[in-house]
Amino acid sequence: MRFSSLLLVPIACVLASVAQAGGIGSRVFVVERATGSLAVYDVVERKLLPQKITGLGDLRHATMIFSPDLRFGYLATRNGQVSRIDLQSLERTGVVFTSENSIDNAISQDGHYIATAEYVPGGLTILDSESMKVLKKHPASFEVGGMRVASRVTGVVDAPGNRFVCVLIEGAEIWIVDASKPDFPIEHRIKTKQTNPYDAMITPDGRYYVVGHMKSDRVSVLDLTQPEAGVREVSLRDPNEEYDRGTPVKLPHLASWAVAGKWIFVPLVGEDRLAVLDRTSWQLVRSIPLRGHPVYAVRSPTEREVWVSFSGEEDDAYVQVIDVEALAVTDTLRIGRRIYHMDFTPRGSHVLVSANGDDKLFLVNAATRQIEDVQTVRSPSGIFGAWRAFRIGL
Amino acid sequence: MRFSSLLLVPIACVLASVAQAGGIGSRVFVVERATGSLAVYDVVERKLLPQKITGLGDLRHATMIFSPDLRFGYLATRNGQVSRIDLQSLERTGVVFTSENSIDNAISQDGHYIATAEYVPGGLTILDSESMKVLKKHPASFEVGGMRVASRVTGVVDAPGNRFVCVLIEGAEIWIVDASKPDFPIEHRIKTKQTNPYDAMITPDGRYYVVGHMKSDRVSVLDLTQPEAGVREVSLRDPNEEYDRGTPVKLPHLASWAVAGKWIFVPLVGEDRLAVLDRTSWQLVRSIPLRGHPVYAVRSPTEREVWVSFSGEEDDAYVQVIDVEALAVTDTLRIGRRIYHMDFTPRGSHVLVSANGDDKLFLVNAATRQIEDVQTVRSPSGIFGAWRAFRIGL
Repeated sequence: MRFSSLLLVPIACVLASVAQAGGIGSRVFVVERATGSLAVYDVVERKLLPQKITGLGDLRHATMIFSPDLRFGYLATRNGQVSRIDLQSLERTGVVFTSENSIDNAISQDGHYIATAEYVPGGLTILDSESMKVLKKHPASFEVGGMRVASRVTGVVDAPGNRFVCVLIEGAEIWIVDASKPDFPIEHRIKTKQTNPYDAMITPDGRYYVVGHMKSDRVSVLDLTQPEAGVREVSLRDPNEEYDRGTPVKLPHLASWAVAGKWIFVPLVGEDRLAVLDRTSWQLVRSIPLRGHPVYAVRSPTEREVWVSFSGEEDDAYVQVIDVEALAVTDTLRIGRRIYHMDFTPRGSHVLVSANGDDKLFLVNAATRQIEDVQTVRSPSGIFGAWRAFRIGL
Repeated sequence: MRFSSLLLVPIACVLASVAQAGGIGSRVFVVERATGSLAVYDVVERKLLPQKITGLGDLRHATMIFSPDLRFGYLATRNGQVSRIDLQSLERTGVVFTSENSIDNAISQDGHYIATAEYVPGGLTILDSESMKVLKKHPASFEVGGMRVASRVTGVVDAPGNRFVCVLIEGAEIWIVDASKPDFPIEHRIKTKQTNPYDAMITPDGRYYVVGHMKSDRVSVLDLTQPEAGVREVSLRDPNEEYDRGTPVKLPHLASWAVAGKWIFVPLVGEDRLAVLDRTSWQLVRSIPLRGHPVYAVRSPTEREVWVSFSGEEDDAYVQVIDVEALAVTDTLRIGRRIYHMDFTPRGSHVLVSANGDDKLFLVNAATRQIEDVQTVRSPSGIFGAWRAFRIGL
């Protein structure tokens, strides 16, 4: 090689992505619903990072999941769009439209596959988490009088054994999909006894898949260790409460249930009570009276407390703290207007609270109950900490 | 600015640290005891990373903790050395000697402070996790006949409320240190009723601090929600078993206890049994017969299974799987010789096993029991996944 040619060699200069302060383990992604963007808060540094991730689509009911290696977050949005966010550079590095209308997503325990639950066209789509390529589409349909009819799909979660579990709304059927086998077979299809499931969740130990039904006070519970046994029905009606004849018990949003200690805490939307079920028998044990209509019940990682948020202008700035041993309210805190979401930090030291009505994100010390940080965020709703990568069913 | 001066401006070229494949969330640090180094395994990529981190000192009983933002791991080694490892570049970026002989470390829940428990000189040292500067030294001593005598310290853990908890061996005293207050005060000093505590652990919910005593079949249990109540003593002797008069029940290593479902599983070293205590009452409920002398009991994140390793050449290549509902052995697996450590991946899909006698690290599928990956690692012992950042007391 002649010397002169060296001059023509472009200077190889690796320009790192704009370096972010702090590390990815303490990053929390806050949905700014009105602007279709994500704000990023660092819970150790206690500050908002300068960048926002924008152009993410319709963020109503948006859910974010994280790859187990913490390279990526995946945001599924209502308009059928899945965006891949690089957790280091905080840039969007991939996007795919899996449907016209999606509701939920999940990542397989091996980290290789993403499943999205879709309304239009109804089905379950499996993506490669690395390439974002669609690997499989399971269209959802069921038979009525010899005709095949389309169904929406919702409530997709990861489950032990590298499975995905979801439920068909019109089909009234739970699917268990094996993400370790070629072509992602639906290995179980389990009919629910009631019609119109509308939402589902998996218990944090990965054992039970719980399905709510429209206009019903009973949920369907499937023990994933023996799916062939089918669902059992569990009543959320308190036999000690009086109900107006025919009054429907309103619909709980399933992600709002909290499993802690021996109990399962269920916000009965439209009632001033939290139902307490026995975690083993699924029997309703009692109701805990509250200051208003509960929306979310969130457990501390210590399983010693459950924090509850409320609907309605008079109550939605408040959080009530339930003691899991006493099964009673021990604290009532005013945080900020229209609380949409809460989440504990992974070792339970703090609670992140989004107050949509005040455009604020709060960091509350779980031990002292003091608000230790407040940040301005536009119309915040869902809060997703990177540590969710390490929890079953999130 | 004149044009010519531009030529003098050095070309700003950010050279990123050697980029590693994969992400930090799936990195597992494996202690190579004989060579004083750490090997790094990626549990998603299923490969060893090319670099090792070397020159780390005496790695007997080395423990590694992780900052909540996942920027750093901190390895405390027997010779009093704390090394800070950059989890992205896998380089050592800090080192400090806090004593001549240390045993354990912990990181505060806010991520700002590291505590190391020390033998020589005995005490608890608090470091700044960012600068690695020593912020406080609590020398450990106690009074005997008007004289102050030095004590070793062990069993340091993080606890709810940004606390550290540790125990003085010769002092027979538990300390609770508040890491949120200036000068890190020892806010509680609780005497144990028995002498010579030698090790301790905190339950995964952060509630109970459990201390083992030399040559005793009773452990001390402190409820951290009411430390002023002092310790209660819990017997590990099975009333249904016959003991030779005077035979001491041998010493369980406290980190080897598994809390799962309603139970606490305790390997009774030197006996062919696992003791099962009720998690609420701390009463011994029964013993589970095993193929040999148990060393470690490790719970699945699903809390449905506990995996047990063994001592002794005839048994130490085996793992027995206990079903938490049936309280019985359901599987016996041969993995590799001299199993020193096991850990589940965070959503429970796999178990990492170090087989010191075979110089191997195994990845076992927890559902199928199949060995899915084997790597050669020199004299492996402790296995520390980055996800430990998000667990209380690890």
